[in-house]
Amino acid sequence: MAKAAPMSPLAPKSYAQCPPIEGVRFSTAEAGIRYKGRTDVMLALLDKGTQVAGVFTKSKCPSAPVDWCRAKLKGGKARALVVNSGNANAFTGKNGVASTKLTAQLASKATGATANEIFLASTGVIGEPLDATKFEGALDKLVKKAAPEGILEAARAIMTTDTFPKVATATCEIGGVSVTINGMAKGAGMIAPDMATMLSFVFTDAPIAASALQTLLSKSVMGSFNSITVDSDTSTSDTLMLFATGAAAKRGCAKIATATDRRLAAFKKALDGVLLDLAHQVVRDGEGCRKFVEICVEGAASAAAAKKIGLSIANSPLVKTAIAGEDANWGRVVAAVGKAGEKADRDKLAIWFGDFRVANKGLRDLSYDEAKVSAYMKGEKIDLRVNVGVGKASWTVWTCDLTKEYVAINGDYRS
Amino acid sequence: MAKAAPMSPLAPKSYAQCPPIEGVRFSTAEAGIRYKGRTDVMLALLDKGTQVAGVFTKSKCPSAPVDWCRAKLKGGKARALVVNSGNANAFTGKNGVASTKLTAQLASKATGATANEIFLASTGVIGEPLDATKFEGALDKLVKKAAPEGILEAARAIMTTDTFPKVATATCEIGGVSVTINGMAKGAGMIAPDMATMLSFVFTDAPIAASALQTLLSKSVMGSFNSITVDSDTSTSDTLMLFATGAAAKRGCAKIATATDRRLAAFKKALDGVLLDLAHQVVRDGEGCRKFVEICVEGAASAAAAKKIGLSIANSPLVKTAIAGEDANWGRVVAAVGKAGEKADRDKLAIWFGDFRVANKGLRDLSYDEAKVSAYMKGEKIDLRVNVGVGKASWTVWTCDLTKEYVAINGDYRS
Repeated sequence: MAKAAPMSPLAPKSYAQCPPIEGVRFSTAEAGIRYKGRTDVMLALLDKGTQVAGVFTKSKCPSAPVDWCRAKLKGGKARALVVNSGNANAFTGKNGVASTKLTAQLASKATGATANEIFLASTGVIGEPLDATKFEGALDKLVKKAAPEGILEAARAIMTTDTFPKVATATCEIGGVSVTINGMAKGAGMIAPDMATMLSFVFTDAPIAASALQTLLSKSVMGSFNSITVDSDTSTSDTLMLFATGAAAKRGCAKIATATDRRLAAFKKALDGVLLDLAHQVVRDGEGCRKFVEICVEGAASAAAAKKIGLSIANSPLVKTAIAGEDANWGRVVAAVGKAGEKADRDKLAIWFGDFRVANKGLRDLSYDEAKVSAYMKGEKIDLRVNVGVGKASWTVWTCDLTKEYVAINGDYRS
Repeated sequence: MAKAAPMSPLAPKSYAQCPPIEGVRFSTAEAGIRYKGRTDVMLALLDKGTQVAGVFTKSKCPSAPVDWCRAKLKGGKARALVVNSGNANAFTGKNGVASTKLTAQLASKATGATANEIFLASTGVIGEPLDATKFEGALDKLVKKAAPEGILEAARAIMTTDTFPKVATATCEIGGVSVTINGMAKGAGMIAPDMATMLSFVFTDAPIAASALQTLLSKSVMGSFNSITVDSDTSTSDTLMLFATGAAAKRGCAKIATATDRRLAAFKKALDGVLLDLAHQVVRDGEGCRKFVEICVEGAASAAAAKKIGLSIANSPLVKTAIAGEDANWGRVVAAVGKAGEKADRDKLAIWFGDFRVANKGLRDLSYDEAKVSAYMKGEKIDLRVNVGVGKASWTVWTCDLTKEYVAINGDYRS
């Protein structure tokens, strides 16, 4: 943890250039929560009128900030987001609840907003008390220096075992008026989102009401964050929030009240793109990863079945270690399909690595060229396609390989 | 694969001494299916009148021998068991079906039994055609040299990535007459049994009818093989069979027709003991393992919920790597409880490593001595106890740690 890990070989070659969004300002600070010599608290300051939507972990043991956000989301309004790294404030009992309350009070005092408009997230070690008094002086300073350009530094402040900050951007039109979506995410391990990944925050100037925003977000998360896995371990802190400042209305953008509004077509596509980009970056920073793996399951009885089979393959340690070993071990893919518990016709099953069909109609495809497949497996991006032969539904999920480095990273994270 | 791996550090200090069981004889041979210089085929010859029961993988892609055994089990009678290692005959289509048929025909010819009384199992690589003609000469020789003492050698012949042969024995009384139960198992990876482990065969001279035997076996497997996991990957070939020769009847043992017969009390206990012993040996040979981990979940809403939570912890790569790193990282245990999807009261949760309570009432137990817990984590056997605070049900599961060696073993198994 303390020593900087080398950057993931799957990191993007450059960071997305996010244009400033009117109504959103960022700042970061070193609050000394756990790390030395790096930022560990981030403030996003939001103009009055900002609408908010969020999706959170389905864990039965959610963190205190997740409980806080769920409760405050009902108001639909946000003025500030405070996120710290180094401590997840999860499994911290009454102390954790008091800690979120104090943080919100301090942020309320510093920003002039009510505590109900303050959203919180924490990421890091589970079970250690979070000393919120450390935010006391920091929040005033954070408010003073907040600036529209700071999203990349903000993304850096919320990193834990991440090896690179994750940002994404898209611009689209609503009724002829240009709007922007910027997002950030963190996460590298304990990644099997069951509503959202560990932490991701997305901002837009589009004037969209909170209820419509919630519908858009809940839908978009299905094919992005909810379709990735690093290690099958769902976090206690998964949080994805979408903030809409509405500033584009000043430039003539139509105010959108419902998610079914046809003018949202391009926005939906852009939002999907930003979330998928961020979700892929999380996988590309999967602890110890060397390969980015896309798994498409087709011919399934339903989309839900295809997804379950896809995640069964993506979470199989045997499939993941085989890919780490650059071995197109489709026998293990068969086993993972079999254990998923969903309908699959063993005698119609077909499997491809890239364009190479290695199994067909329930047995090895004798025509494939082992040398060519081996060469393909040496690449950084592995496409795995499985047709389970029972229907027409499909789903795509993403994961990374399982390497010795994953074990090393997680064998001494806490100590 | 080819090079012999060092024996698991968790291997038993000595092998169980299994007394011969009347009506069961073993022999082994080198059929050259995949390995060089070691036995790879095992025959268990069973006297006329032997009753049989079995439980098999719930995989939707079962192997050809699993399909064969399921079909033949209806007869309830067995005369021979033929098992090969090196090739699982799974996902081999019509070729696989033909291969099981030919093997049974050859065994029928060699033994004089009907093909319906021949049981088969195969373990090894998935998806490669199994050339059953290799058994042609071998089976005659195997029948000729079969002897009552050969169970340890038989257990050795069915090993794949196993580092030691697994046998267990128990003696008990039925109505005052002594009977014996001997068992063998193989398995080290792809272990998350969903009816039975990869391969396990148990023999007794008790005169118990097939239908009663089936009831006993199905019940006993729940708390043993179905409660272990190495890597969450359920195999295509899981097979557990119980053969009862009935030879003890000649010594005055009562013939048992139903599983509810009260005279079975000691036998049930002995059978449970043999299966649990074998299941533990499979975990103790978990690929790359260094620690044997017992996880007891209590205070759950139901036994099924306790088991699901237990397996969620046991399959969590983060918990397993933490244990490999000798870190009592209970935060990851909380996350694994949370993701299981079963009822758990976060604010009542308590966690123990050995006798050390590290978390209580939803937060860190401030009284525990970190140095003592760290010393405990250096041991070879780790007991993890979790009370989820919602009910009175409990369940125990067993697993091993996840080490770099697991990744190394599985990164180049096939190639």
